[in-house]
Amino acid sequence: MPAPDPSPSPAATALRPVPVSPTLAINEAIARKRREGVRVLPFGFGEAGIPLHPSLTRELAAGAGRGAYGPVAGSPALRAAAAGYWNRRGLATDPDLVVAGPGSKPLLYALITALGGDLAVPAPSWVTYAAQAALSGAAALHVPTRPGEGGVPDPALLAAAVTGARARGRTVRAVVLTLPDNPTGTLASAATVREVCRVARDLDLVLVSDEIYRDLVHDPARDVPSPARWAPERTVVTTALSKNLAAGGWRIGVARLPDGPFGRALRASLLGLASEIWSSPPAPVQHAAAHAFAEPPELVERVDRSRRLHARIAGAVADRFERAGALLHRPQAAFYLYPDLEPMRDRLERSHGVREGSDLTDLLLERYGVGVLPGAVFGDDPAALRMRVAPSLLYGADDEQRLAALGHPDPASLPWIAAGLDRLSEVLADLGGEAASGHGAPGRGGQAPAALAS
Amino acid sequence: MPAPDPSPSPAATALRPVPVSPTLAINEAIARKRREGVRVLPFGFGEAGIPLHPSLTRELAAGAGRGAYGPVAGSPALRAAAAGYWNRRGLATDPDLVVAGPGSKPLLYALITALGGDLAVPAPSWVTYAAQAALSGAAALHVPTRPGEGGVPDPALLAAAVTGARARGRTVRAVVLTLPDNPTGTLASAATVREVCRVARDLDLVLVSDEIYRDLVHDPARDVPSPARWAPERTVVTTALSKNLAAGGWRIGVARLPDGPFGRALRASLLGLASEIWSSPPAPVQHAAAHAFAEPPELVERVDRSRRLHARIAGAVADRFERAGALLHRPQAAFYLYPDLEPMRDRLERSHGVREGSDLTDLLLERYGVGVLPGAVFGDDPAALRMRVAPSLLYGADDEQRLAALGHPDPASLPWIAAGLDRLSEVLADLGGEAASGHGAPGRGGQAPAALAS
Repeated sequence: MPAPDPSPSPAATALRPVPVSPTLAINEAIARKRREGVRVLPFGFGEAGIPLHPSLTRELAAGAGRGAYGPVAGSPALRAAAAGYWNRRGLATDPDLVVAGPGSKPLLYALITALGGDLAVPAPSWVTYAAQAALSGAAALHVPTRPGEGGVPDPALLAAAVTGARARGRTVRAVVLTLPDNPTGTLASAATVREVCRVARDLDLVLVSDEIYRDLVHDPARDVPSPARWAPERTVVTTALSKNLAAGGWRIGVARLPDGPFGRALRASLLGLASEIWSSPPAPVQHAAAHAFAEPPELVERVDRSRRLHARIAGAVADRFERAGALLHRPQAAFYLYPDLEPMRDRLERSHGVREGSDLTDLLLERYGVGVLPGAVFGDDPAALRMRVAPSLLYGADDEQRLAALGHPDPASLPWIAAGLDRLSEVLADLGGEAASGHGAPGRGGQAPAALAS
Repeated sequence: MPAPDPSPSPAATALRPVPVSPTLAINEAIARKRREGVRVLPFGFGEAGIPLHPSLTRELAAGAGRGAYGPVAGSPALRAAAAGYWNRRGLATDPDLVVAGPGSKPLLYALITALGGDLAVPAPSWVTYAAQAALSGAAALHVPTRPGEGGVPDPALLAAAVTGARARGRTVRAVVLTLPDNPTGTLASAATVREVCRVARDLDLVLVSDEIYRDLVHDPARDVPSPARWAPERTVVTTALSKNLAAGGWRIGVARLPDGPFGRALRASLLGLASEIWSSPPAPVQHAAAHAFAEPPELVERVDRSRRLHARIAGAVADRFERAGALLHRPQAAFYLYPDLEPMRDRLERSHGVREGSDLTDLLLERYGVGVLPGAVFGDDPAALRMRVAPSLLYGADDEQRLAALGHPDPASLPWIAAGLDRLSEVLADLGGEAASGHGAPGRGGQAPAALAS
């Protein structure tokens, strides 16, 4: 019998349990399936799927020698460039009220922590808002959106939820909007945003407007209704280079704070948090980001091309889901769609034992190698058969394919993209078919059936 | 009479008050004095004051095209290189137990948050540990160090403090060590670290060992007694490139977690927090950091030279303080010293109205343009006349001067460094002199007196 360990480890059970963000976890789960030799459709992770533009790479190389920490809020050059970016979009911006951080994710975390109190978020909404609220010691109030207007809580439901929470003794300080929206790929109307602004004023809520997908509205003529237009005194806007210029791995984001005493105080609190959590954004990246936010013609063209590519492929994927019988609001922005397989519920349960959304997405990953995220991770009803589909990693396996996709007038016809789309149709047909071929229960961890893997 | 504002801003008073980290704030305060035309001695900020090595800049440029997020824990190449770095220092390391982040500061924040509970820290210690504990909703227990052994709480006092806090109903989960130490520039003995390891086992505390200055011990033959050697099952080690290679602005750090079930569970919690707070460390920087942690000969030589430079100048500054009558433990590592002006207390009070540490550092900044931080910001007794002096920004005003300092056998003789040292002696002489020249009270915001500014 072995002697008892003389130096037992600390109790792991006392640790704070924080699961990895589902959007990042699905990325790693898909990589695992790939290592197992499974043919995958990586529709889980919100990465733009296009290469960095060479002028960005060149500017980062030019800034590589910047080793000093620099100001907590980011360099004056970066803050001025970000102010210019917003000025060109009709939001007059004082560079002193711009704060940069290592991504808009940490900026949102610091904002939510600085504001304190519970946070109203749309249902569904990006997984991280609610997770960050929980980390800061608060709760998220999930408020349903109007149909087809993802990212903005229904104004009447927002008022009721905040009033109700306050009546129960909770402090609610802010509401998050996502314009345009992740996970639904839709854009709320100006009318709805204005109503939310009115509710925010009536109930003294701060509006946090995550506009990271602003430049990726499929119809470039369509206006993005930022609440900063109607409630400038209480709106914080965040954005980054991760989505429009595919620089997610660079870790840079910016926040635009409201003018006036509240904005100045928020800036002080935000910089205090930034100084204790991350010091400053990466200095070489700040140099390149100043170039990007100045929007030179080659980057404007790159964003235009990527917007067209996202529109084409999201549209093609939507077609496949609709043909298979799914319900769906047509994607209007970014590289997301949010189909609902409710019309196939009976067959899914009979053939595959699917009862709720996560059964469906587990089945899709384990049997078919299709990585998507169930609506529940975005705060949607767990029973619903809704899921977020992010087809941008279909654009290519390498930069050569991705550049070809960016330049092609009909990217869905490129062989590797067409193959992915056809594979999706095949999976959806198999999913929705009757149980006739022995596919009764989902084969956890198994290979895709031979008939489909071909 | 103007109409009342129809859309009042949210109440700024409801915001979470978080002051900017004093180490970063002094950097900005010194920049302000400089803009006012004051001749400054920037001894406030813990920046290494040497240029980036060209091979680092080259590697960052080579990695500039990396735009994808990549794994939350950092790239396999970076984690393997960091494991190699620790292996060469006698700490066998599994790359799977290495987690990279955008600086060791956010890693420490996530660790402290994951561990939960109150945090024992040395008094004095780096400002951020206690601030991060407060942000995570816990308290810091400041435990005095043994004389000349900064960075490690006195073991008996640690045991008493933790036992006492627990008796008052507090949960205390971890203790931070800084080896070698910021702010004192000293290195604790192996005997003291071993005693702390024993206390940690007896009281089931996790040891968080911040070893960011490990490679900057002035005597390169001297052993750095990491607690990972004696309490491997409960020790987390952190380090970064900010200090030994002056890449603070790059924002990259690594943590080495203990092997076994506790370490694995801590990794899971840490990655959950990382995924919701910062996603991943900057990808191009990870590429360059993998090169740095592999320790190619040119970087080993650079660290050697910078260690010698830090030793020479910290020693020269210590000489000036000693000659002026200050008490001081001779600096043994990094670019910090921690003089105590207690022997000058009577004169400081009579001539300058100085009663406590922050009076002294305010006087030094406002009258003399000397930026240093009072001991109180590090958790030391506010009444004490101790302060942290970081002379590394004396090495040069530009990279040409800094390279000359790195290469010089007697850098204190270089004209710009000698001028800074002489200015310091002048200030200390004036500080300690009797009030005979009308310098009765500190002249807030004024220029340095003409007799000194020349």
